Amino acid sequence: MSFQHHLMSSLIPLTSHGTIAVDLSVCTVQCVCPQECGAMLAGRLLRVWRLADTAATGLLRGLRPGPVGRTLQPRLAAPAAVRRASSFQHRTHTCGQLRAKDAGRSVSLCGWLQFKRMRKFITLRDGYGVTQLILPDEDRRLSELVDSLPLESVLQVTGAVRLRPDGQQNQDMKTGDIEVVAHDITVLNKPERELPFNVRSFNKATDPAICPQAKEALRLQYRYLDLRHTELQENLRRRSQMVAEIREYLVRDHDFVDIETPTLFRRTPGGAQEFVVPTRWPGQFYSLVQSPQQFKQLLVIGGLDRYFQIARCYRDEGARPDRQPEFTQVDLELGFTSQQEVQALVEGMLHRCWPQELVTPFPRITFSQAMTQYGTDKPDVRFKWRLVTVTRALRSCGLDVLEKQLNGPDGAAVALVVPDGARHHSRAVQAQHARMAEQAGLAGVSALPADGAGRLGGRLAAPLGAETCSRLAAAAGAGPGDLLLLAAGPEGAARTLLGRLRTHMADTLEEAGVTVRRAGPHFLWVVDFPLFVREEGRLVSAHHPFTRPHAEDEHVVYLDPEQARSQHFDLVLNGWEVGGGSMRIHEPALQRHVLQKVLGEDTAPLQHLLDALASGAPPHGGIALGLDRLVALAAGAPSIRDVIAFPKSSDGRDLMAGAPSDISREEYELYHLKKPS
Amino acid sequence: MSFQHHLMSSLIPLTSHGTIAVDLSVCTVQCVCPQECGAMLAGRLLRVWRLADTAATGLLRGLRPGPVGRTLQPRLAAPAAVRRASSFQHRTHTCGQLRAKDAGRSVSLCGWLQFKRMRKFITLRDGYGVTQLILPDEDRRLSELVDSLPLESVLQVTGAVRLRPDGQQNQDMKTGDIEVVAHDITVLNKPERELPFNVRSFNKATDPAICPQAKEALRLQYRYLDLRHTELQENLRRRSQMVAEIREYLVRDHDFVDIETPTLFRRTPGGAQEFVVPTRWPGQFYSLVQSPQQFKQLLVIGGLDRYFQIARCYRDEGARPDRQPEFTQVDLELGFTSQQEVQALVEGMLHRCWPQELVTPFPRITFSQAMTQYGTDKPDVRFKWRLVTVTRALRSCGLDVLEKQLNGPDGAAVALVVPDGARHHSRAVQAQHARMAEQAGLAGVSALPADGAGRLGGRLAAPLGAETCSRLAAAAGAGPGDLLLLAAGPEGAARTLLGRLRTHMADTLEEAGVTVRRAGPHFLWVVDFPLFVREEGRLVSAHHPFTRPHAEDEHVVYLDPEQARSQHFDLVLNGWEVGGGSMRIHEPALQRHVLQKVLGEDTAPLQHLLDALASGAPPHGGIALGLDRLVALAAGAPSIRDVIAFPKSSDGRDLMAGAPSDISREEYELYHLKKPS
Repeated sequence: MSFQHHLMSSLIPLTSHGTIAVDLSVCTVQCVCPQECGAMLAGRLLRVWRLADTAATGLLRGLRPGPVGRTLQPRLAAPAAVRRASSFQHRTHTCGQLRAKDAGRSVSLCGWLQFKRMRKFITLRDGYGVTQLILPDEDRRLSELVDSLPLESVLQVTGAVRLRPDGQQNQDMKTGDIEVVAHDITVLNKPERELPFNVRSFNKATDPAICPQAKEALRLQYRYLDLRHTELQENLRRRSQMVAEIREYLVRDHDFVDIETPTLFRRTPGGAQEFVVPTRWPGQFYSLVQSPQQFKQLLVIGGLDRYFQIARCYRDEGARPDRQPEFTQVDLELGFTSQQEVQALVEGMLHRCWPQELVTPFPRITFSQAMTQYGTDKPDVRFKWRLVTVTRALRSCGLDVLEKQLNGPDGAAVALVVPDGARHHSRAVQAQHARMAEQAGLAGVSALPADGAGRLGGRLAAPLGAETCSRLAAAAGAGPGDLLLLAAGPEGAARTLLGRLRTHMADTLEEAGVTVRRAGPHFLWVVDFPLFVREEGRLVSAHHPFTRPHAEDEHVVYLDPEQARSQHFDLVLNGWEVGGGSMRIHEPALQRHVLQKVLGEDTAPLQHLLDALASGAPPHGGIALGLDRLVALAAGAPSIRDVIAFPKSSDGRDLMAGAPSDISREEYELYHLKKPS
Repeated sequence: MSFQHHLMSSLIPLTSHGTIAVDLSVCTVQCVCPQECGAMLAGRLLRVWRLADTAATGLLRGLRPGPVGRTLQPRLAAPAAVRRASSFQHRTHTCGQLRAKDAGRSVSLCGWLQFKRMRKFITLRDGYGVTQLILPDEDRRLSELVDSLPLESVLQVTGAVRLRPDGQQNQDMKTGDIEVVAHDITVLNKPERELPFNVRSFNKATDPAICPQAKEALRLQYRYLDLRHTELQENLRRRSQMVAEIREYLVRDHDFVDIETPTLFRRTPGGAQEFVVPTRWPGQFYSLVQSPQQFKQLLVIGGLDRYFQIARCYRDEGARPDRQPEFTQVDLELGFTSQQEVQALVEGMLHRCWPQELVTPFPRITFSQAMTQYGTDKPDVRFKWRLVTVTRALRSCGLDVLEKQLNGPDGAAVALVVPDGARHHSRAVQAQHARMAEQAGLAGVSALPADGAGRLGGRLAAPLGAETCSRLAAAAGAGPGDLLLLAAGPEGAARTLLGRLRTHMADTLEEAGVTVRRAGPHFLWVVDFPLFVREEGRLVSAHHPFTRPHAEDEHVVYLDPEQARSQHFDLVLNGWEVGGGSMRIHEPALQRHVLQKVLGEDTAPLQHLLDALASGAPPHGGIALGLDRLVALAAGAPSIRDVIAFPKSSDGRDLMAGAPSDISREEYELYHLKKPS
């Protein structure tokens, strides 16, 4: 087969997916010829071929080139299946691989008996898909064998591929154009007894006897069965692909060094609760790291100025839904860099690994803007609704209770207009809002639904009077049919509450069938966070004590630290915080000042870091992205548990093996522990 | 620049390294043109280009093609420096990058002030190399600035590259043909005080005041300084490169799925001591996994039949030299596979990632052969010396003490001939051998050095008599000048002792300047291990209880389990065990039999695995390679600590941060621990 033929057979199927963007400067295309040669065609090659070969030029016309100078890669709908998915295994193809072009081939498949009917048809399943097998009428031996087998038996089948008869093709199956006439079946293993759920139908069935929690627990207990479902298989394969792209972007394109750092370490002051690990020395414990923060700074100080790691991290946060005691970060750090450069690096990385095309650079807003406009530092910008300050419109409204709140400390009135929201403001919604106001420490939230003429109603409308209502509606931008939600009191609390109501009302409208959020990923950088926040009277780091002050605010750290902004930046996706980065303090004097004077910390546990900064530390910064959440969002999975092979339950238990569990008397002794009586 | 020019400029520098092997079927070549385009040229391309373009054919002649059908990659001496090592950073080049061709360029470099002399010459160092800077005579401002700076100050320098004057080139430096005339220097940071050691000379100096242990401790305490040394930098970059190759081989070429598995789990019965992690539930602990063994089997049972992971593992082995409490495995598993296929996969993987060319397949010997010929299950086959059974030659030698040993249980006489070893058998060596014999539980080892005529001498020669000595020399194959070492007693102990003496004598000869071991990596598979071994009267698994019996010995597991061989296979490199793999038991009945009847284990902690096997488990097998050791051997590093960024000391302490350490009273309470009084 000639190279041109390879190119042809590679590009035609690619373009037929219709979702390819090829930058001709730096990219590779995987050859998907039927010979599965696995060749990677380089971007440079494509360009040259276009110059040198008109046939190839024609093939390239179907491709949409991306902006020149960016690193793109072809978006393949399902590249996995066309690679060498069967090398070193006893099969010629996977169960998701055969197509009409394979008719006539002799093949060998391995998989699970998913379904059988009429002593003639079998569905064989593996992790890649399903294939229909036909038992020949004349071979009673095979039909009797299959008849005797329970579902989920493990089979090796040899046979011949043939086209399905006209009208019997199944468009819902990747292999729906063909079937395999079985010539021989070897039973590799059989289930010993009936399984706790049927792999084929469990996720589709809505058996009222199984409540969602019980089903979730059952799925976790029999995770190895749950993993046989297509959805989980695809999520884990997607994760592997994304991680591979991230690694190649960093190591191959940008010469980062993949460095493993310890997880058994010493507790970092401040931060989350860390698991402790007893040792053979009485009273001495390792801590399981909550991030490689110290190590990555020490690596840059040690001259490894382009570090990254897909790092396992640990946090003991007790029982929290959708958190895991161990989780994974894409962790990286550079020396001699800046916030803008780290952001550009991350944008390129996500552009490379994301399943859909992303537009870069991502928009940026400041922390202050985010709080003002959205009432949260991780706004979901898939919809435009913004908070509006309406204090002036209500300043002399004559309502005592309201004026008192406005004149209190940090008093303000803030409004959120829910477009066309008046008709979604049911009793139930009102009750939920009242509870949310209480949680936010506010007396309540006022709802002023606008009628068809744009006049505000609700309990507050009469006491405010028509003129004030009209001024309020104008200030907030409420039109006919809109719902105006009004919170008054300390400004921070009012904004936080309305930020939550914003999400709540978006959910409420979407449950009612209204499309509020735009489709697709909406990444956003939130920048210029405060460096410190006040908690119970004292200043604590808003993120961690190594965060560098904003370039304009370095003196402020000495004069009025609470006012200092930081060079911390969060990456937010669809309302989720998916990453946090910062420039770090590299001057030992400034770091000591922050630890001792501002935070009042004992510096002894960090003496090694202070010594390292004092040994000639370059300016440096980096970021950590939460891989579990990122993959869940990319895969459209509702929970991070759907993109983790063996997740713990929401209270941190392994329901399959039964961890945590008791330990032996010898271990109590070895680790100087005392058995609870 | 034309594509042909790219190809030319990529191949010429590659061939000049003289160590390239290119398989034309599947490989990529990184373009190393001066433009640093970063393009990857595919193997298919090369072949086609050869057919289509005679100029390219000429270029390809310098390449030595590997065996067709194997996955090779070009061996680049230093590919890292030519990639985009400065993107997202404030420099145009690294300190190891500039060459004669760059003369005339304006550049910006960042790095550490390594050395200065005559107020004129500066050596600037970063993680990639060093560059000589020249301060212009007319700019006194710069020379005064540099004069005031301590070594290890962090600088950003802009300047112009120029060729060094004739005769001043430095062939030992990659950048030795050029120097950079500094136009501006920015001081980014300065060390606060003198550093505990000089980065430039610490590893070379042999200060008698610093003993090796103290130096090692100092290096670990100031690891961030130690990391600035070229050797450690290169080791960590080599590790990153090897891991990248392994990942690409598995994910890109062979469609493996990279899956993270938990480290917080439940203790697996048997095996090494696992660290325990207390939880908020009294008396309930996680264990830190010693390997992902159970998870990888469960993944294959769950349909993910091509799993791999670079996995962090934990073992609490107390203080052991050159072991770490946390370590890294290349862990993989396949369904529907065989031992031979797993071995072939691993051979391809190592062939891909190894810095030198490897010959595959690797040789295989059985456990029984290894013990017979080398007295160890991890023989160093870089040298040929083999043990020889000489029982028959000594059977009726007339020496009571010897005959008693031969007639004892399992009695045998085993000899090792050290070629040309007679003159290396000093008093000190004899004393060491006596100690080693004692450790092996034997009365001693007899040395019979042969004289120039091949006559055996030594204390045993006279009592044995000339005839027996001559028979013994002939049986063992000892010639003039050789040293014959003789051990008699229980055969296993005698062989184990001589296996150790074999290594010891090879070291002794090499210390005396004799070349014993061939250069390069000598991989070896050891197969057909026993499935069980007897320890303190009862049978235990030789490796782990999930290991599958040898195909010929399945019935033996039921009849006489101690005689059963396993489908376990070890990968040995230069005398180190670097990996262990096996086929696993996939039938629940056989697994229950092994656990309950043979091993007498409580199956409750493994019920989930037994259930999983009973749910339709495919035949499966896999391997785990010790990455730390593998990289150390590839890098020629004496200790695994030299390829780990932040290793613990040999007793498991982090000497830099001081871990393990005490924990707070709150943590004692949270985790139901009792503070030692």
